[in-house]
Amino acid sequence: MTGYTGKILRVNLSSGKISIEEPEENFYRTYFGGWGFIAHYLLKELPPGIDPLGPDNKFIYALGPVTGVALGGNGRNAIGAKSPLTNAFGETDVGGFCGAELKRAGFDAIIVEGKAEKPTYLWIHNGEAEIRDASHLWGLQTREAHDAIRQELGDQRIRTALIGPGGEKLVRFACVLNDLNHAGGRTGMGAVMGSKLLKGIAVRGYTAPQVADEEGLRKIVRWLADNVEELSGGLKDSGTSGGLLNLSLSGGLPTRNFQEGSFEGAERITGVTMRDTILSGRGNCYACPVFCKREVRVEEPYQVDPIYGGPEYESMAALGSFCGVDDLKAIAYANQLCGAYSLDTISAGVCVGFAMECYEKGLITKKDTDGLELRFGNAEAMVQMIEKIGQREGFGDLLAEGVYRASQEIGQGSEEFAMHVKGQEVPMHEPRIKFGLNIGYATSPTGADHVHNIHDTAYTNSTRDLKHLGILEPLPADSLGPEKVRMTMYHIDWSVLVNCLGLCLFLPYGILRTRDIINAITGWETTIYEMMKVGERALNMARAFNAREGFTAKDDVGLRRFSTPFAAGPKKGVKVGEEEFQKALKLYYQMRGWDLETGAPTAAKLYELGVGWVADELRKHGKLPG
Amino acid sequence: MTGYTGKILRVNLSSGKISIEEPEENFYRTYFGGWGFIAHYLLKELPPGIDPLGPDNKFIYALGPVTGVALGGNGRNAIGAKSPLTNAFGETDVGGFCGAELKRAGFDAIIVEGKAEKPTYLWIHNGEAEIRDASHLWGLQTREAHDAIRQELGDQRIRTALIGPGGEKLVRFACVLNDLNHAGGRTGMGAVMGSKLLKGIAVRGYTAPQVADEEGLRKIVRWLADNVEELSGGLKDSGTSGGLLNLSLSGGLPTRNFQEGSFEGAERITGVTMRDTILSGRGNCYACPVFCKREVRVEEPYQVDPIYGGPEYESMAALGSFCGVDDLKAIAYANQLCGAYSLDTISAGVCVGFAMECYEKGLITKKDTDGLELRFGNAEAMVQMIEKIGQREGFGDLLAEGVYRASQEIGQGSEEFAMHVKGQEVPMHEPRIKFGLNIGYATSPTGADHVHNIHDTAYTNSTRDLKHLGILEPLPADSLGPEKVRMTMYHIDWSVLVNCLGLCLFLPYGILRTRDIINAITGWETTIYEMMKVGERALNMARAFNAREGFTAKDDVGLRRFSTPFAAGPKKGVKVGEEEFQKALKLYYQMRGWDLETGAPTAAKLYELGVGWVADELRKHGKLPG
Repeated sequence: MTGYTGKILRVNLSSGKISIEEPEENFYRTYFGGWGFIAHYLLKELPPGIDPLGPDNKFIYALGPVTGVALGGNGRNAIGAKSPLTNAFGETDVGGFCGAELKRAGFDAIIVEGKAEKPTYLWIHNGEAEIRDASHLWGLQTREAHDAIRQELGDQRIRTALIGPGGEKLVRFACVLNDLNHAGGRTGMGAVMGSKLLKGIAVRGYTAPQVADEEGLRKIVRWLADNVEELSGGLKDSGTSGGLLNLSLSGGLPTRNFQEGSFEGAERITGVTMRDTILSGRGNCYACPVFCKREVRVEEPYQVDPIYGGPEYESMAALGSFCGVDDLKAIAYANQLCGAYSLDTISAGVCVGFAMECYEKGLITKKDTDGLELRFGNAEAMVQMIEKIGQREGFGDLLAEGVYRASQEIGQGSEEFAMHVKGQEVPMHEPRIKFGLNIGYATSPTGADHVHNIHDTAYTNSTRDLKHLGILEPLPADSLGPEKVRMTMYHIDWSVLVNCLGLCLFLPYGILRTRDIINAITGWETTIYEMMKVGERALNMARAFNAREGFTAKDDVGLRRFSTPFAAGPKKGVKVGEEEFQKALKLYYQMRGWDLETGAPTAAKLYELGVGWVADELRKHGKLPG
Repeated sequence: MTGYTGKILRVNLSSGKISIEEPEENFYRTYFGGWGFIAHYLLKELPPGIDPLGPDNKFIYALGPVTGVALGGNGRNAIGAKSPLTNAFGETDVGGFCGAELKRAGFDAIIVEGKAEKPTYLWIHNGEAEIRDASHLWGLQTREAHDAIRQELGDQRIRTALIGPGGEKLVRFACVLNDLNHAGGRTGMGAVMGSKLLKGIAVRGYTAPQVADEEGLRKIVRWLADNVEELSGGLKDSGTSGGLLNLSLSGGLPTRNFQEGSFEGAERITGVTMRDTILSGRGNCYACPVFCKREVRVEEPYQVDPIYGGPEYESMAALGSFCGVDDLKAIAYANQLCGAYSLDTISAGVCVGFAMECYEKGLITKKDTDGLELRFGNAEAMVQMIEKIGQREGFGDLLAEGVYRASQEIGQGSEEFAMHVKGQEVPMHEPRIKFGLNIGYATSPTGADHVHNIHDTAYTNSTRDLKHLGILEPLPADSLGPEKVRMTMYHIDWSVLVNCLGLCLFLPYGILRTRDIINAITGWETTIYEMMKVGERALNMARAFNAREGFTAKDDVGLRRFSTPFAAGPKKGVKVGEEEFQKALKLYYQMRGWDLETGAPTAAKLYELGVGWVADELRKHGKLPG
């Protein structure tokens, strides 16, 4: 092997032109993949101020060095574009088999430009690509579209990334659905597909990706096989929502639009209960022995098919406790509806929960809700509202705009409890039990986001080993002191890096073994230093993208609800103090080398990260601080 | 092994109290050793504004994790105190066997406080320490003192760190001489010993230091044995001055007080010529297979004994080309005088060269120089002036104050060509062929210093592998653009880290193997990330020390001579442009998180490095920026 390189597929739907680019090795080593690729292309190729739902936006599906390698945790891919939900850097993570298939088809990323004249889908097979008519698929739910594509291409092993009617109708938080049961939910990437009349991507490939050190990789595969039961057995047993009850007992389960931290119905919707009732099987991503994926079957009163998967923790909480709903079957059905229509379960749940609070407070009535009694705990109303959002029907048409725009329309103070940052709905993690989280929510380029921000105490998950980064003592979750700010920064850089790798944060590799994996695959002899800088680089490039779009420090807000003390429960009285938060936020900016006023990375930071061209780009648009 | 820890020996010469401290493992992991230890203790224990030659100063001899381990390159120790030359953070590196012996005697560092009533020396043996009378040794040259100590303690294997009359007489650039042929030259640490009436330290120990992974370490020892000839054979063959002629040919050999970059007599003083003429043997540091140390014998007209070692590159250039001297024997003799009197060869040579320029320009005459014809090229005058400095006799008494103070006294514009930063004489590396060097000179907490700054092009020495840090392309030596500023920062952090390890920069381990060495010894599973932060932390603490002492950005000066173009030679016309330099300096500050006005690390930087207590300390003294 002479170096680690690959291919990027570029498809222009306006012109029909398909081309293949082969960046040099240093491009791969500078950005690795995922978020790094997306930030690079969006900064290089999107003029500022474009309409995210117009033809100038670009839809990027990006893999990483681990994608498609026969190693657990390789299944996470990144999907990016300018977000129609936030008008900022948009990025979402998705699991499954589609990425591995794409890598085996010969590509590290797809860039889709322009807009098709009629509904289309992309068919990628073994190094080639073809734009195909999807007129007959337009309007179909994802499952029907998926089946039709496999049928017409005559291959039942084809993998798909699709949108349903929600994406077609430009629901601002429409997701991209991979193989029907893995959702790239956040920042409305499904709406970007819809705006391009791109129904989906179908992929088939047969070439195993290159690995520099096969034996080195085999050792890690064997290690995982030997340890997966002990280290990740819980995830297999009861899935990502296995800890939901404990979270409620500790006062940190988002409940009734973040008004509370404990939910009286938690036990009925925990992963353990799901396991013991409706679970019909366990799924995985490509080559992964963890099997955290749920498959559920419900016959009545709703019909839920295992093919759509079962609710993850985020979905369970957002459609459950967040809406005060403890009806597991209803949640599973709503989860299926989100898959069928291609809606983000988090945003959808937050929108419904928000509407419920509006309803209970009398800001909206049955007249507004098409007759639905939209109270917390009304499972049937929740289900119906999800369907209305997917159809953009009645009140659902307003909620399909997301909680920020809906609250602007409803007004009457509802803006105060519309749980979003930069327009993206807050995920199911409570800053009042993990103070550092609020910094992550406020400053994430994608708006309120959990993937890169959920850690707060040292030594958890793949960042359990912060010692290797020089953080030698664990820190209490309920502090926002300078040490916590530092730890939050390290966590976020690492998490963004893991995204660039295409690796799953749930795998128990830890920092050192993650490095070894990358070296086995690429032969680079990279270090944690270089890797941390890759994460930091990608994050800063996304911040630079937002600065170019006009975002400033004013957009990095802490939510008032999180600085309001819990009225009851085990965390009664606990809040993230506003002054404490502002102080921590300022320190975080300074640690990061971000300008206090504009929130943009300084030239010094960008040069230090080796991307002077990003500084030039900001300077060109008058957005470089100083 | 339950953790990597050790012992610190504390000796108070005023009270005679001797105590042993055992810091916890995280202390070791946070600072590693060397510069890190020194910065920690000076910041914690020295009140600001103390007289560096008074009893309040503390003399610290610090080892690192590699010290005393049977592995090549373990011989470098750090010696620190507030510097009498600069009134700033003082630190010098020294090689030899003394450190290994001290480690085997059970200690990782010695802190000497107070001032003795009469001349004393310290006798450390196998976990114990004793303050002994040195009245009979005071006034002796180092060799005589060394022999007397071995004699009276009855052990010819005792190792010593000594001063001669230069240190006793408080020559501001007096060195500490280990085993007669290894000098800790910079920042006047020998004068600090002299001020405490501490003639020296004698050490003997028998306990091998702990190693967590013996087999892992053995592998590296074997690797070095197998590769040392190929990778470091040149150093063995012709020593550190082996490249002196090429340097002259390329226009970068400091010549006649940095007025020129090529020396017509270079071939006569190169390491190759030394090898073929006066070389009598090759020495090493403890357990090192490189054998870069020179031993030389001269019978006439000077008597030079191999016991004092032969001139290193720095000494050869400073006493040679810098003074226009091409008489190898005279240089070897002057080098021996510096050892006997305990003078830093760099500072001594720079002082003499400075005086020569003054003399040639008519600013001083024979009346000032005690009758010496102090012209460039006058070898005999150079030798006599060194002796006068060591004795603080006549004109030598003025030069013993260092070039900064001497130029203040001489005046008449001589300040313009007094080659120093912060009062410390510039070493033998020319910024006009390595532009990044000027940033290092200007900003080093120790004043103009080479150890942490000599690299300029990527992939040299132990930092040849900057790729592992994410710098993927080599950079031209004659640029000061943003990429160079970044590289300079990385180089310096790495070099300070290597100091903290107690490792020699000449060993060909590279970044990855250096990490493996530390892990084999400590069992920490540290990463390059953690290690780079240790270096950065130590550097920033030294900057904080200086800020507390009142230093500001105004003290970080680029020398006018380096922004003057070479008048002739291969680099004719080349200069480090003043504007270019100022721009790069500002960017360097910003990258580092240093305040533009005070040059001090910001609170954010200190918190990010996990040393909030340093921020508190600066705040207490009104020196924390912002």
